Amino acid sequence: MKNLFEYLRNPRNVAVIGASPDIRKIGNAVLDNLIKAGFSGQIFPVNPSYDEIMGLKCYLSLNQLEKGLDLVVIALPAEKAVELLDQCVRNLARFVIIVAGGFSETGEEGRMLEEQIKIKIRGSETRVIGPNTVGLLFPYSGLNTALTPSNRLYYPGKGNIGFISQSGALGLLVMDSITEHDLGISGFVNIGNRADLTEVDLLSMFADDPNTKSIVMYLESIADGEQFFSKVRKISMKKPIVILNTGRSAEAARAASLHTGAMATDDRVLEGILKQGGAIRAYDEVELMDYGKALAYQDPPPGDRIAVVTTAGGVGVLTTDLLTASLDGIKLRMATFNENEKSELKRHALPIASVNNPIDLTADGSTEAYKSILNILTESDSVDGIIAYALPQTPKIDVNIVSALKEASGKKTLVVGVIGYRLATKVMTELEKAKVPAFPSVRRATDAMKALYRYGLYRRRYQNDS
Amino acid sequence: MKNLFEYLRNPRNVAVIGASPDIRKIGNAVLDNLIKAGFSGQIFPVNPSYDEIMGLKCYLSLNQLEKGLDLVVIALPAEKAVELLDQCVRNLARFVIIVAGGFSETGEEGRMLEEQIKIKIRGSETRVIGPNTVGLLFPYSGLNTALTPSNRLYYPGKGNIGFISQSGALGLLVMDSITEHDLGISGFVNIGNRADLTEVDLLSMFADDPNTKSIVMYLESIADGEQFFSKVRKISMKKPIVILNTGRSAEAARAASLHTGAMATDDRVLEGILKQGGAIRAYDEVELMDYGKALAYQDPPPGDRIAVVTTAGGVGVLTTDLLTASLDGIKLRMATFNENEKSELKRHALPIASVNNPIDLTADGSTEAYKSILNILTESDSVDGIIAYALPQTPKIDVNIVSALKEASGKKTLVVGVIGYRLATKVMTELEKAKVPAFPSVRRATDAMKALYRYGLYRRRYQNDS
Repeated sequence: MKNLFEYLRNPRNVAVIGASPDIRKIGNAVLDNLIKAGFSGQIFPVNPSYDEIMGLKCYLSLNQLEKGLDLVVIALPAEKAVELLDQCVRNLARFVIIVAGGFSETGEEGRMLEEQIKIKIRGSETRVIGPNTVGLLFPYSGLNTALTPSNRLYYPGKGNIGFISQSGALGLLVMDSITEHDLGISGFVNIGNRADLTEVDLLSMFADDPNTKSIVMYLESIADGEQFFSKVRKISMKKPIVILNTGRSAEAARAASLHTGAMATDDRVLEGILKQGGAIRAYDEVELMDYGKALAYQDPPPGDRIAVVTTAGGVGVLTTDLLTASLDGIKLRMATFNENEKSELKRHALPIASVNNPIDLTADGSTEAYKSILNILTESDSVDGIIAYALPQTPKIDVNIVSALKEASGKKTLVVGVIGYRLATKVMTELEKAKVPAFPSVRRATDAMKALYRYGLYRRRYQNDS
Repeated sequence: MKNLFEYLRNPRNVAVIGASPDIRKIGNAVLDNLIKAGFSGQIFPVNPSYDEIMGLKCYLSLNQLEKGLDLVVIALPAEKAVELLDQCVRNLARFVIIVAGGFSETGEEGRMLEEQIKIKIRGSETRVIGPNTVGLLFPYSGLNTALTPSNRLYYPGKGNIGFISQSGALGLLVMDSITEHDLGISGFVNIGNRADLTEVDLLSMFADDPNTKSIVMYLESIADGEQFFSKVRKISMKKPIVILNTGRSAEAARAASLHTGAMATDDRVLEGILKQGGAIRAYDEVELMDYGKALAYQDPPPGDRIAVVTTAGGVGVLTTDLLTASLDGIKLRMATFNENEKSELKRHALPIASVNNPIDLTADGSTEAYKSILNILTESDSVDGIIAYALPQTPKIDVNIVSALKEASGKKTLVVGVIGYRLATKVMTELEKAKVPAFPSVRRATDAMKALYRYGLYRRRYQNDS
């Protein structure tokens, strides 16, 4: 039997109620994004005012369409959307996205309207996403129901990070950001006000999705703490989960309630959930995707002994500082090489190079030397993980370093740091193609290694417990 | 009388000893960079093997040239460079850059060679930069003596940040990075092993430079703690100084000594210098330039009450969290608007917008509304500083937001956050042209505001003390 959520990830058909040729209407962007994303199923625009929109036959209402549609997007204002939900339920729609805001985030009247959604779907087969949601994105199915036109925003392509966001705009902005280095996602869902489907349902969905290797969540509150905890704990043993929870300060909690109508979760409660549940905590939107990427592409290191390879001495010194400093209680150690390893390393590095840790191949370090050094490190029993800098400004380092890094990343936990702009961006993009986790600053690289280590710690502890 | 350092910032002539048409030689890149940077003074390649290089007449030796050259770059190996220093001294060169490594960073023999440099210039008019330096860059004079070819690296243009770096490669990488959003510098000097000129001399130079509005320093050690402290204290009252000091951990200190031959400064000693001296501390290369930019473009806020303006609710919530959380002991407060201000704000925002702080204009917020809101905030007595998000993905926000932000930044301390890639990069670049400090993540924006606040705290304390 097909899992219910497969119809959401990969629907056979999508109806857009409120589809419009008017670019000022949300139903215009939703339809346009669907078409541009290359959705291979059927698309049904629904709007009584038109016969055809964007070359597609347009329908008067859902009643004209087959029953049991997989996905219906209602791109109309709040009251109208709630009214039309009846039609969706009668026609046995599996999933309905209610885009409009104007519900519990606006006060008591909106809260009542949101209650109507719950009442209308009670006992039915119809599940609702939203209201107050920008929609969802599943690149593997060519499915993009987002409400922002693609001339305003880049949408990421196929990748391995499942992204659940309570905030729509933040989710869209973050997706736009990660296209800079072509980082992809397996899917994105903006849960909005969560009248029906919550973060817990979507955790299940991504847990079952073979394209999803890590799950990242932006949350301003948690719908049901106990349920969330047990779900996170169960899933995080198999797939790493990263959580950015905001509304931590009293002032931020107030802002959050005005934003998604949610009561923010007490920070100490969440802290407990994270510590016991095994999720990794992010403190901002950049860390969220950085950790998601590292955990999607690499297994955690078995221990805390890290080797650092660089062609710029200062970068090695800075890495040592940040790596050995505590981040949320995690610090790592610089691996110590034995005499055998040192002489092996020495054999491949220039006489002026340092083969202590950090290994500084200097500005004369070549891609060839780099490869040999990586081979020694991946074979070494003294090393649990590697932070390697790909610095294409160094004259003898070229883009072939990517394949060397890719090979090493298959043998030992590896994180790459890249600093710079023009050539650096090219290398970042090549590394992304190869699914080697790369980060454009020393701190982001070292923090990613710490996130990997933290996840490993959790898994080992949990395995011992059970 | 002309200050000695004006000859370094803006020399009338530069000789390159070791200039070469061979692209494998450092003297090739140095000469090429000098020419490409558009240096308007005279350039004298010096190499007995050639009559002409890159269309310039080539000289046998310094002896063929006029006495009293402003700047000589020696792009030859260590021993040869030390030998040629005699000629520079005899010919009364004002400044000599010794590029080669192979001095104190390599051990006792190198240390002895470095000692020779000090002996040779003793009592002379000649000052030495380096050895073990990648060179310097002064965009206002079209002066670039860096050793990395420009096909490997972008060099920043004219700006207001003076950059002193003990590490060459790190300095070059950071400069490459900041070209992404066209951030410029007033100058860059890699002090290397500091046989003669130290960070203290260069602090004086940038303090006197009218183009320099803030000074950023990457240091692995401090040549003379007492002298440094008093210099920092004196200068930082007028020009903000940001310091990234590495080699903090024992392991990093070892790496640093292998890198620039320096003994790392004990972290607690530095902490004292920073607290009393009034410099702002950065913990990585990104913070270093971020704080440098914020402090170059904006005066510190008079207090800690910050207003936040956004068109994406989640971004406001996250900003509130990070702003009110402690960073190195600094936290800020969300400004509270009085009833008058609230009704004024309400008048310009849409009914669905929130005019609490953060002010969330929502996805329907327009550039016009944004402008009116900024006007109210700059006039408000309840607000010390503003963090404004320029999110061009919001359909009614366009690039005209830049002039509104520019205007507000002239009236009240303002920091801009930008999230995203394509349109965001355009806005970042426009903001940079307008010298409005903008940062591509929530944390980087809030941290920049905290750096500004910290500098203000210092200035107020110091003014009260004296």
